[in-house]
Amino acid sequence: MFNNILIVGCGLIGSSILKSSIKNKVSKNIYVYEKLKKNRKIIRKINKKIKFISNLNKDLENINFIIICTPMSEYKFIFSKIDKLKSKDLVITEVGSTKRNLLKFAKNKNLVLSHPIAGSEVSGPKFGSKELFNNKWCILINKGMKNKINLVKKFWKKLGSKVIMMNAEEHDKIFAITSHLPHLIAYNLIKTAQDFQKVEQKNIIKYSAGGLRDFSRTAASNEIMWRDIFFSNNDNMINSINKFIKNLNLIKKKIKAKKDKEIKKILVNSKKVRKQIISSKQDVSKPDFGREI
Amino acid sequence: MFNNILIVGCGLIGSSILKSSIKNKVSKNIYVYEKLKKNRKIIRKINKKIKFISNLNKDLENINFIIICTPMSEYKFIFSKIDKLKSKDLVITEVGSTKRNLLKFAKNKNLVLSHPIAGSEVSGPKFGSKELFNNKWCILINKGMKNKINLVKKFWKKLGSKVIMMNAEEHDKIFAITSHLPHLIAYNLIKTAQDFQKVEQKNIIKYSAGGLRDFSRTAASNEIMWRDIFFSNNDNMINSINKFIKNLNLIKKKIKAKKDKEIKKILVNSKKVRKQIISSKQDVSKPDFGREI
Repeated sequence: MFNNILIVGCGLIGSSILKSSIKNKVSKNIYVYEKLKKNRKIIRKINKKIKFISNLNKDLENINFIIICTPMSEYKFIFSKIDKLKSKDLVITEVGSTKRNLLKFAKNKNLVLSHPIAGSEVSGPKFGSKELFNNKWCILINKGMKNKINLVKKFWKKLGSKVIMMNAEEHDKIFAITSHLPHLIAYNLIKTAQDFQKVEQKNIIKYSAGGLRDFSRTAASNEIMWRDIFFSNNDNMINSINKFIKNLNLIKKKIKAKKDKEIKKILVNSKKVRKQIISSKQDVSKPDFGREI
Repeated sequence: MFNNILIVGCGLIGSSILKSSIKNKVSKNIYVYEKLKKNRKIIRKINKKIKFISNLNKDLENINFIIICTPMSEYKFIFSKIDKLKSKDLVITEVGSTKRNLLKFAKNKNLVLSHPIAGSEVSGPKFGSKELFNNKWCILINKGMKNKINLVKKFWKKLGSKVIMMNAEEHDKIFAITSHLPHLIAYNLIKTAQDFQKVEQKNIIKYSAGGLRDFSRTAASNEIMWRDIFFSNNDNMINSINKFIKNLNLIKKKIKAKKDKEIKKILVNSKKVRKQIISSKQDVSKPDFGREI
């Protein structure tokens, strides 16, 4: 598909793209730019033919395709370098979790914005998987040159993804609800539990199997990535937090007044969502995610 | 251990006690009281020797040990029947998720309150497992006759549980944080997502793999059980909801003002809890709970 691709930032997502690209024969040569020595050490073991680039000032004229997989807070620096590349045929994409904030980089006509809906609470190339994108959604933002968008689409499909087009506004609104708010809520719940533990001087961790443990997984996600997301999807975050608090206050009132039917209705309704999620193959159907402990 | 035990209510927990009791040879005979015909049909297949009792008015004088596994809202009816049993050697226990509200039933001197920290989003005997209590905590409330408490302790240990003593106040306070609040928050998040879906007319379910799906599992829990819990742990719920909202408003402010260091500190801190949960063997260590989809 390509002769020379360059992966900039080789953490969980970057290394998964690397492994999946090797498996699916996406490119003859794969170049990697990765700041951390400990990460390079892990990546080197994946495949001996991977070529490391030590800085982005270098002549990168042979590169056909760049995938930026760093935290979004590093994009400014990265684009200050790669904006200088002159090749007309170059295609650039990236994997950031919010999109409106990245539109400014699209003054670089080679850029196509994408967001693979994949990842987990772990980070780093140690956890990279060649199957990470398999059957997962990848959102492409419909801004930029058609031929470049088509090439990026082809790339993600080659890694096994199902590609869908959206505009940046729609993307940021939807993922505020399906991803960003859930993460913030998980962080906040764990913080509330920590506060309780401090005040009450009780070890509550050992009783976390009653529900808290699920939230602790989400709240163990990478702090740089999530700070970037919360800050760049600021307005949608605040809007959805406000709606969440409004609903919570409503439920609180109903619990206080023991509104039997109304509470049951809310609980029964939210049960339906699980079935929809399972039938649309967004989660495993086994109880407790099939975990055994 | 016993000659005749009676399981009252044979859903997920009741049927797991049933299966585990058979496996661990807890009793010569096992009696079951189960209202629903469809449940009895499933239970009958577990073991042919299980004896069904069609009502609690019957002569139960041969029963040594009763385990009540119905929703707590049915206890009043059940105790109105079993309070009449005269045998001095009878021991009664139950598995309710809150405890202060059950202290009133302890006027029955045979009763010992227990709470096995086990279960999941599914309910009904179809999902019962003989391993459900294995290596799980079981909380016993330190109220009642010592010899009866010891027998109940022995019973849970026989099913594989690790038993710990607490008073009802402590129990309800701790599980408000580790279990009841997380469930309420999950229900509230799903409700907020449903509201969004209705207003925006967008199918967001298919993007739930970004975080929402975890919450949908918790929010698929049994509505009768959880209504009972929210109502009977009313004061602790309201208290912890208030603390949660206070924290959420604080985080919201910090996001609004892009307080970099302060947000990062909260995220890094909450990450530590995951490690503690895994090292205390309350969850699997695999990323994404080891689920593969």
